[in-house]
Amino acid sequence: MQHILVLHGPNLNLLGMREPEVYGRETLADLDVKLHALADALAVRVSSFQSNSEGALIDALHNARTTCSGVIINPGAYTHSSYAIRDAIAAINLPTIEVHLSNIHAREAFRSTSLIAPVCVGQIAGLGMVGYELALRALATRFGV
Amino acid sequence: MQHILVLHGPNLNLLGMREPEVYGRETLADLDVKLHALADALAVRVSSFQSNSEGALIDALHNARTTCSGVIINPGAYTHSSYAIRDAIAAINLPTIEVHLSNIHAREAFRSTSLIAPVCVGQIAGLGMVGYELALRALATRFGV
Amino acid sequence: MQHILVLHGPNLNLLGMREPEVYGRETLADLDVKLHALADALAVRVSSFQSNSEGALIDALHNARTTCSGVIINPGAYTHSSYAIRDAIAAINLPTIEVHLSNIHAREAFRSTSLIAPVCVGQIAGLGMVGYELALRALATRFGV
Amino acid sequence: MQHILVLHGPNLNLLGMREPEVYGRETLADLDVKLHALADALAVRVSSFQSNSEGALIDALHNARTTCSGVIINPGAYTHSSYAIRDAIAAINLPTIEVHLSNIHAREAFRSTSLIAPVCVGQIAGLGMVGYELALRALATRFGV
Amino acid sequence: MQHILVLHGPNLNLLGMREPEVYGRETLADLDVKLHALADALAVRVSSFQSNSEGALIDALHNARTTCSGVIINPGAYTHSSYAIRDAIAAINLPTIEVHLSNIHAREAFRSTSLIAPVCVGQIAGLGMVGYELALRALATRFGV
Amino acid sequence: MQHILVLHGPNLNLLGMREPEVYGRETLADLDVKLHALADALAVRVSSFQSNSEGALIDALHNARTTCSGVIINPGAYTHSSYAIRDAIAAINLPTIEVHLSNIHAREAFRSTSLIAPVCVGQIAGLGMVGYELALRALATRFGV
Amino acid sequence: MQHILVLHGPNLNLLGMREPEVYGRETLADLDVKLHALADALAVRVSSFQSNSEGALIDALHNARTTCSGVIINPGAYTHSSYAIRDAIAAINLPTIEVHLSNIHAREAFRSTSLIAPVCVGQIAGLGMVGYELALRALATRFGV
Amino acid sequence: MQHILVLHGPNLNLLGMREPEVYGRETLADLDVKLHALADALAVRVSSFQSNSEGALIDALHNARTTCSGVIINPGAYTHSSYAIRDAIAAINLPTIEVHLSNIHAREAFRSTSLIAPVCVGQIAGLGMVGYELALRALATRFGV
Amino acid sequence: MQHILVLHGPNLNLLGMREPEVYGRETLADLDVKLHALADALAVRVSSFQSNSEGALIDALHNARTTCSGVIINPGAYTHSSYAIRDAIAAINLPTIEVHLSNIHAREAFRSTSLIAPVCVGQIAGLGMVGYELALRALATRFGV
Amino acid sequence: MQHILVLHGPNLNLLGMREPEVYGRETLADLDVKLHALADALAVRVSSFQSNSEGALIDALHNARTTCSGVIINPGAYTHSSYAIRDAIAAINLPTIEVHLSNIHAREAFRSTSLIAPVCVGQIAGLGMVGYELALRALATRFGV
Amino acid sequence: MQHILVLHGPNLNLLGMREPEVYGRETLADLDVKLHALADALAVRVSSFQSNSEGALIDALHNARTTCSGVIINPGAYTHSSYAIRDAIAAINLPTIEVHLSNIHAREAFRSTSLIAPVCVGQIAGLGMVGYELALRALATRFGV
Amino acid sequence: MQHILVLHGPNLNLLGMREPEVYGRETLADLDVKLHALADALAVRVSSFQSNSEGALIDALHNARTTCSGVIINPGAYTHSSYAIRDAIAAINLPTIEVHLSNIHAREAFRSTSLIAPVCVGQIAGLGMVGYELALRALATRFGV
Repeated sequence: MQHILVLHGPNLNLLGMREPEVYGRETLADLDVKLHALADALAVRVSSFQSNSEGALIDALHNARTTCSGVIINPGAYTHSSYAIRDAIAAINLPTIEVHLSNIHAREAFRSTSLIAPVCVGQIAGLGMVGYELALRALATRFGV
Repeated sequence: MQHILVLHGPNLNLLGMREPEVYGRETLADLDVKLHALADALAVRVSSFQSNSEGALIDALHNARTTCSGVIINPGAYTHSSYAIRDAIAAINLPTIEVHLSNIHAREAFRSTSLIAPVCVGQIAGLGMVGYELALRALATRFGV
Repeated sequence: MQHILVLHGPNLNLLGMREPEVYGRETLADLDVKLHALADALAVRVSSFQSNSEGALIDALHNARTTCSGVIINPGAYTHSSYAIRDAIAAINLPTIEVHLSNIHAREAFRSTSLIAPVCVGQIAGLGMVGYELALRALATRFGV
Repeated sequence: MQHILVLHGPNLNLLGMREPEVYGRETLADLDVKLHALADALAVRVSSFQSNSEGALIDALHNARTTCSGVIINPGAYTHSSYAIRDAIAAINLPTIEVHLSNIHAREAFRSTSLIAPVCVGQIAGLGMVGYELALRALATRFGV
Repeated sequence: MQHILVLHGPNLNLLGMREPEVYGRETLADLDVKLHALADALAVRVSSFQSNSEGALIDALHNARTTCSGVIINPGAYTHSSYAIRDAIAAINLPTIEVHLSNIHAREAFRSTSLIAPVCVGQIAGLGMVGYELALRALATRFGV
Repeated sequence: MQHILVLHGPNLNLLGMREPEVYGRETLADLDVKLHALADALAVRVSSFQSNSEGALIDALHNARTTCSGVIINPGAYTHSSYAIRDAIAAINLPTIEVHLSNIHAREAFRSTSLIAPVCVGQIAGLGMVGYELALRALATRFGV
Repeated sequence: MQHILVLHGPNLNLLGMREPEVYGRETLADLDVKLHALADALAVRVSSFQSNSEGALIDALHNARTTCSGVIINPGAYTHSSYAIRDAIAAINLPTIEVHLSNIHAREAFRSTSLIAPVCVGQIAGLGMVGYELALRALATRFGV
Repeated sequence: MQHILVLHGPNLNLLGMREPEVYGRETLADLDVKLHALADALAVRVSSFQSNSEGALIDALHNARTTCSGVIINPGAYTHSSYAIRDAIAAINLPTIEVHLSNIHAREAFRSTSLIAPVCVGQIAGLGMVGYELALRALATRFGV
Repeated sequence: MQHILVLHGPNLNLLGMREPEVYGRETLADLDVKLHALADALAVRVSSFQSNSEGALIDALHNARTTCSGVIINPGAYTHSSYAIRDAIAAINLPTIEVHLSNIHAREAFRSTSLIAPVCVGQIAGLGMVGYELALRALATRFGV
Repeated sequence: MQHILVLHGPNLNLLGMREPEVYGRETLADLDVKLHALADALAVRVSSFQSNSEGALIDALHNARTTCSGVIINPGAYTHSSYAIRDAIAAINLPTIEVHLSNIHAREAFRSTSLIAPVCVGQIAGLGMVGYELALRALATRFGV
Repeated sequence: MQHILVLHGPNLNLLGMREPEVYGRETLADLDVKLHALADALAVRVSSFQSNSEGALIDALHNARTTCSGVIINPGAYTHSSYAIRDAIAAINLPTIEVHLSNIHAREAFRSTSLIAPVCVGQIAGLGMVGYELALRALATRFGV
Repeated sequence: MQHILVLHGPNLNLLGMREPEVYGRETLADLDVKLHALADALAVRVSSFQSNSEGALIDALHNARTTCSGVIINPGAYTHSSYAIRDAIAAINLPTIEVHLSNIHAREAFRSTSLIAPVCVGQIAGLGMVGYELALRALATRFGV
């Protein structure tokens, strides 16, 4: 069974509490429930991990290299500063989809540039938690499951 | 029943013939079949329109203002040059999702900036024709259907 | 009798419906009534034309070359992207005044640069529909009528 | 009766003598005659003031705060360097129209950017002394006189 | 027999009338006579088309895809704004030579950047109508005729 | 007894009246009362001066050169345009602290760059009138009083 | 009693040893003594934390969300690279003052831009360790203690 | 007899006291002695004026328009910010030489750009007070005296 | 008989050996044969010169000033760095056509900017050695031969 | 005996597995063997450490402050984003050589700028693992061993 | 006796023939006569040298290192491109004055930046051949002759 | 036996005399002794050449094309301006290592960009003359000698 890592970057642990007018009121736990249900329906497996540490996120990507076949990543603010996460994604060579809850192209100028996107398969932004579900569907389609 | 306009910009009529290593071999007609099937499943209605003319695309958006409740748009190269399409989307005030077949963030520098995205709900890029299906799902979810 | 073309660019057909907090609630038809009344008072003639198509706007400018003696143009969003309209105005060599309903210098950064202005006699921005009337007066003064 | 301040910035005292091919041969005194005549016709009152000193212009704006109900300002070259005049206009909170004799958008690059415009109601450029008359009409219209 | 499309962009229909000190006094019809004579001499066929509409130019390029074996294009001012024409040329995959009557590298700064050139075989600028004849010779040489 | 000049730049005379949501409702006179009370407590002496004229502010700095031992300056909008005030501060060689009522780093982009700061000891921004009191304490600490 | 977190970023653990000509010879422990004394005088409570890890600093900010009512942060070099710390401060929604020992506006160009400042109440720079004391006073004033 | 205005901008009144390692120890009075001696030798007349006020410098230039036949100006820091002085020099249409005591091209980046130079005959920088004498000689040569 | 200088810049002596996938396999000697044949047919005279030295190229242009009536120049990499060659072409005032073997507009970004082009009659790029033949024809046409 | 820290940044733990066409097939362990052999030959001591965490790398540099006399660092992608590592190197004041396996000047534009290099003794790039050996020799030469 | 090298860069050998409206009609030989006369009067010695080759100019500067005590250089177009001449001037450590015949600050944008000026004592521009005489006087004054 | 060209660019002939605090006191002759000794030890052959002329350096590279199997180049200031040397290195297709005596990344901003590096194998900077020895070792390792 295909195994997909869902990786959440800095401050996403506060989801549901932080700036709800931008990010909504559901928590990461709520998201996990939805993603597991959809994973079951699609016959794939998902594991999720959150960290505020750039290094820990890179470690998690490295671990996925031999244990997963795809990655969904919301790099949070590291989207705009982390060449190291970019290199990690390129290094592990797994199909990766970048997800953003808010429409990063409609906020402060710095948020519209992703250092991560050039090494991903694609990007989904602005669709809230539904974005993760769509990314999961896209990977499942890609795996032919 | 919710009605969604699927709008295709310049050169997309050549889909399946043009640079297949970038854009794949399926045509717009193939896509229409898929989208109508999914629309049926989601109990919404879709209509699609393609034009190479910026003005005709704006006219189509204006028409949607009173006949549709959502828009999926792939503005093609107008993504990077058309403030007029941007203004049209803002003017009609319908939830709009921008879709790109290829990962515009991984190609020439000019392709990573969308003039359209700031007035859309969100953007899906790099997932091929699946991207349109995901956009349709996202709008359907938004409509609560 | 001096004949003046009043040219409206993309999305201005939605005037009165689109973003009324920015552009007001009067329509192009309302404007026409006002401009014809003022033209009568000034003993000049006005004709107006609106299109969402850059090419059609250029065609209209070309037509004015032998039939009109002045132009009032609100290029809408083409203000910021159309070197072709700029070249058309330079080519027909008629005194042209650029009008904007809103204060383009007080909105998004891209709106403060006009590609059209350098080939016009002048620019009036931010005065709503009154701006067209002022432009008409300015041309009439220039014609010595 | 509505009272409008007409404020002239640096070097405008030389009007009629300085670079007549750019600015024409009429003087500020000639302009005053025209503006007073039009003000009478519009049933408003105008006072004009010129200074080469940024500080004196700011002082004049401050004075207008309690004595005038609108401002017409040609900031001259301070248009491109004075955040202080910008702040003064924002501070006094009166409807202000920026006027330029020449088409600042068709000259040296630095002249096309106005630091003042974002806090004004609008801008009129390139119409010579007529521009002041148009600005006066626009304010009068705004006051409903 | 090799068939070559000669495509003229916006404002070129005014050739011979518009800014003759920059563009000369010959018209597009004059050019056609010359090009057909040279085509006969080179044993190739030429067809020419002019439009002020970006969309119509793209349509013409698409039509050439199956009917022509080479393109000579003077994109006029769309040279500097149309990623859509660029994509159309890349999509039809025919050898294309960009021609400009004036030396675009010696005029306003914006004219020295061509969005079209990177997908063409080459560019000829500043040689007036002779430039089209040279482009025709270059394509003929390329075809080995 | 150490004597400290408190210098206020353009528009600060309107303090308490101008944009109170940004700058609060207290006036310069209110501030003077507070600063004199604190100065007494710290056993230093303060004098304050406000001007809308760049030249007058420079004159005041020059006067401080032989009569004061420190400067607190809120250059207002001259912060972003006056190399001349910068040179004046460097020339008089007194410890100078720059104060801004609002958080200049959280407003329009131009406000986050201070031409003055590089020749000051430090900068305090965003703390309202308290910022002056803190600057006074910092100078007093520096003087060892 | 109000509780204030004092957060120190990378390399500040070397304070007193590192580049003393820039940062002085006192250590973080020396600073803590001073801040606790002042906190007692002001009847507030302070806790301090230092880390070289961006993730650990974000964790500390998250912890402060429910335990503290204000933050004083010297983000060290993360000032110029960490959008993640910026987002953390925005997320916890506590009044935060940014402090820098040296005058960051008078050093290398990159140091004058703070990514953090736009989400803080204000910034104090260049006043050495006194800057922390002033920040503490400013927060206390704000709390009305 | 030819009359030449020698104009000194902001902070130059401190010459001889301010940053002597950059500007030397001679005062403006010392310079005047030298210039009058040289003027006598060259059979021309010089008058000098210094002000810290941009407006006063413009007034002085305006006065020179009918009383002088040439100008030597050291605009001090206004060199880098004053489009108004630039316009004043262009307006009075007298041959003007810009002088800087220090080599402005070898100091902070902002000092190497002169807004004034494009409307002057030429610029002399870095030669200390000798620069004024050379400028005087250059004007005298130009007048053929 | 009209005499035309054909000038080749740095590294062009390696033509036919260097990066043949970019520049082809023919040598400068092969080109000379072709150009002499065409010159004979056009009844003009050509001389060619190659140097890797910027100074020697300038010397050759100076020599052409009195001996030639036109220049064809491929400045090689000096295209992008030599204001001195630009000045030499402007100084000798002969009609000059710039030729590039490869399409400089489709390679590294620095290659698309020519410092030389603004002082030439025109530019031909991307047409290989045929480009020189076309340039020769263009000059011959210009000479009316 | 001189002790040298060899520090490896993010993703270098994957060396030998990641993008071998760029980075080769040898692992960090292979490198350690080589470096220890060379260290023995040069009579110095080396210790190596790798981490994906910016904070852990800074901690390691701090530890080296009192235990080592030189540093060889390959900061990986932190080269382009970490002012904090830069500050750490400046703070510990040990001679440091920056090493990159690949030629960072021949890859994506962002890789050619090192934030670290200005505080290092020098930089070696593009020589693969040999680069570390050369850096070791350079430090040994510097120590005079 | 002090010996001064007068160095002329590319295209200056054409002086008197090239663009006389910009550079005048006198030749380098005419200038030499004037400079020798002035040198005699000042009791110094001058030698002049012109080359179109950057390398030859550098060689001449190196030769001056042990034979001259000052340099006057007009680097021509190398002013804007030659870091090598800059380094040569810095290396020989002689007082050097940069001279330009025309006002480089009033021409094309690229001409206003001198790469040479930061290592010179000063710059004289726009005063024609008189500029060299002034430079000679300035060096003589500096030498105290 | 492998033959390696060691190429020195402008001003390096002054090595040991020029700015010794930056470049040290050893001369090129001293370096040659060291490099020959090391070459003997490595069983390779080295020849060195220095020129101040860009053209002569290109000629030397061309000569190396058939006589050498590797190049060590210190392009001096041409590093930052010579696309022609870059093209020469690409054209001869020999492994080339760029060496700089000083740390070019820690000096003026323009020195940190090398136009040469992208076509070299790698770059060594900041290690003084040792850098050449390391480059020689790196080439020898590459040749497997």
